[in-house]
Amino acid sequence: MEFNFSKKVLGLKPSAIREILKYTADPSVIPFAAGNPAPDAFPVKAVEEISEKILKENPILALQYSITEGYPPLREALKEDLIKRGCFDPEVDDLIITSGAQQANELSAKVFCDEGDTLLCEAPSFIGSLNAFKSYNVNLVGVQLDSDGINLEKLEETIKAQKCVKLLYLIPNFQNPTGLTMSLEKRKAVYELARKYDFVILEDDPYGDLRFAGEEIPSIKSMDTDGRVIYSRTFSKILAPGIRVGYVAAPKEIISKIIVCKQVSDVHTNIWAQVVAERFIATCDMDKHFADLRKIYKRKCDLMIKGLEENFSSKVKFTRPEGGLFIWCTLPEGSDMMGFCKKAVADYKVAVVPGNAFLVDDNELSTSFRINFSTPTDEQIVKGCEILGKLSKEMFGE
Amino acid sequence: MEFNFSKKVLGLKPSAIREILKYTADPSVIPFAAGNPAPDAFPVKAVEEISEKILKENPILALQYSITEGYPPLREALKEDLIKRGCFDPEVDDLIITSGAQQANELSAKVFCDEGDTLLCEAPSFIGSLNAFKSYNVNLVGVQLDSDGINLEKLEETIKAQKCVKLLYLIPNFQNPTGLTMSLEKRKAVYELARKYDFVILEDDPYGDLRFAGEEIPSIKSMDTDGRVIYSRTFSKILAPGIRVGYVAAPKEIISKIIVCKQVSDVHTNIWAQVVAERFIATCDMDKHFADLRKIYKRKCDLMIKGLEENFSSKVKFTRPEGGLFIWCTLPEGSDMMGFCKKAVADYKVAVVPGNAFLVDDNELSTSFRINFSTPTDEQIVKGCEILGKLSKEMFGE
Repeated sequence: MEFNFSKKVLGLKPSAIREILKYTADPSVIPFAAGNPAPDAFPVKAVEEISEKILKENPILALQYSITEGYPPLREALKEDLIKRGCFDPEVDDLIITSGAQQANELSAKVFCDEGDTLLCEAPSFIGSLNAFKSYNVNLVGVQLDSDGINLEKLEETIKAQKCVKLLYLIPNFQNPTGLTMSLEKRKAVYELARKYDFVILEDDPYGDLRFAGEEIPSIKSMDTDGRVIYSRTFSKILAPGIRVGYVAAPKEIISKIIVCKQVSDVHTNIWAQVVAERFIATCDMDKHFADLRKIYKRKCDLMIKGLEENFSSKVKFTRPEGGLFIWCTLPEGSDMMGFCKKAVADYKVAVVPGNAFLVDDNELSTSFRINFSTPTDEQIVKGCEILGKLSKEMFGE
Repeated sequence: MEFNFSKKVLGLKPSAIREILKYTADPSVIPFAAGNPAPDAFPVKAVEEISEKILKENPILALQYSITEGYPPLREALKEDLIKRGCFDPEVDDLIITSGAQQANELSAKVFCDEGDTLLCEAPSFIGSLNAFKSYNVNLVGVQLDSDGINLEKLEETIKAQKCVKLLYLIPNFQNPTGLTMSLEKRKAVYELARKYDFVILEDDPYGDLRFAGEEIPSIKSMDTDGRVIYSRTFSKILAPGIRVGYVAAPKEIISKIIVCKQVSDVHTNIWAQVVAERFIATCDMDKHFADLRKIYKRKCDLMIKGLEENFSSKVKFTRPEGGLFIWCTLPEGSDMMGFCKKAVADYKVAVVPGNAFLVDDNELSTSFRINFSTPTDEQIVKGCEILGKLSKEMFGE
């Protein structure tokens, strides 16, 4: 039969970069296109011990239906942690567990946006969130990202030009895909714009604990005096992404709506994984764990930056992230970025993600591409940079 | 600040039965209102051994990001199983893993329904699915459920009266909340109506493997010659609900849209749980496991039916399910069902779910209520039936 699908789903077009992504399944391809945490960053031993103990001592807790809000001891522990970080006001805020930060971001859009409502994001931004927003048929508008964060003039222009701006989606720390971090001044200024034009900020902070250089910058959530910031975080990068445990803190009224939507989406997040996460933060030395993670990511990032410096054409610019997983490379103006990426993967077996994939309309032109230093081995980082560097010199000279 | 929530979320009103549900947190209340699988039905030992082995032998598989479609060996095993049941045509169909059947049902609505499109369901039906459908602002219309399934005349009348009927949602086996099973004749007739009026059937079968009496009846999916049936199933009742692993089989074109929506919803289902589910069905004697489960559920159902027969006023009617978890009780016409339920929980500490909770508009009148035999202990079943019986005789005579 002919299917009459919903408009919102028909609007989700296949990605313009699928031709490149199909190469990434080949294990001989160097995976600079990925976004996986480093496998050696997983606390396997701790998870093993914790899981065994839970299933021995309280299996029904880990296997039976649970409540939508999440495992109460985990929620309490995370609230305490956010209070210490100045990101949670128990009088105003609530916090629930989600199936990854992906669900937190998707449900924030569902809770606020009717079809056609405007949702603003950085351009470029995280493709998974952009697609989640698009799946609700919102008017998604990207605003230019500068090296210190979203461009304020362009942001205000866009707000004035668009109708019914409901949400502004931001990844202030080590942004995906660029690795850039929003300055303190910009965070303050963006928050003031949210007050002036009365919209809500969705602050996505998946990499916040992976800062390996520079000074910590307060979250926008920590500046929120009105109760207009939704703050989503995840265990994906500090414990394991496969268990799909994230969380979101926001004013109680917003959380109560997100709970209703989460209940109809998956009832609750895998409770076994929630108990493991709770036991993990309760019993492990988290300061040491974070220090270990930062050491791994710093080493891999430094190695990749060194590879880029030593091998790349001087015409290619790249970001120097202070944390996270990604570096953003930009080819000379007017150059054939897609040609570069296709050649890299098809001829030289190094996969990178073309920059247009991170734009609201991936048919827009971009001269940038994203590379990742957490997934490849150290050897692959060295070799991949040599290959990409050689290709860049062939195309753009020394 | 004042929040400007989306219309679809504002349409999700707090339940009319919340006054009753608040009592269910009290552990001294007999939990006839619940819907949890029996804790003694969980294969705890097997899960423990499987989980330990996975984390020892291949921890990264269980902890790293995975693909949206689900763990390939689990998908293959489930396809094989459905082929044996006559419910899967490899030429036409595909199958993906979802975070519980809840997600399969929610995403089916998202994939097909724009705001205002019509989605039909049995009246009464499963509240979790009804709320999922409502969260997309669809025109949700309930059709009278008879003892052998949905009323065909009313169904055809409703189809003719409504615009743009996209989906018909059915739970043919041991329906939630009524415990009723749709006859073979009705399944065939409903499928013919779907052909005649060209809509898709969403067949939800969470309890199919829990048949403890009567003859198995072929699924509507097994009759599907056009490719117009979506078939959702779950591990919640045969392994454990807390791990949130379900699956959905449907024509490839539909599955490809559901995959896109699942990706933006939670990226993928907890992969650790998927590997456990795969190892469970691969290594355990499933025939014996199902036989064990059916024995547990049959014993508990028989005990409850006996309690109802021995204690209830003859004016109260109830269903005699051939499987599943629920019995549906109906008080005499015109009686104060809500008064009965409130008295039962507030004065006598037995919680049941008022029948109006399962209607599209829970302000509609109902004289029925749902009771569950899988959650309470055998002792609680006996005592709860005595208490409800006494109350029924007080209110309606012998």
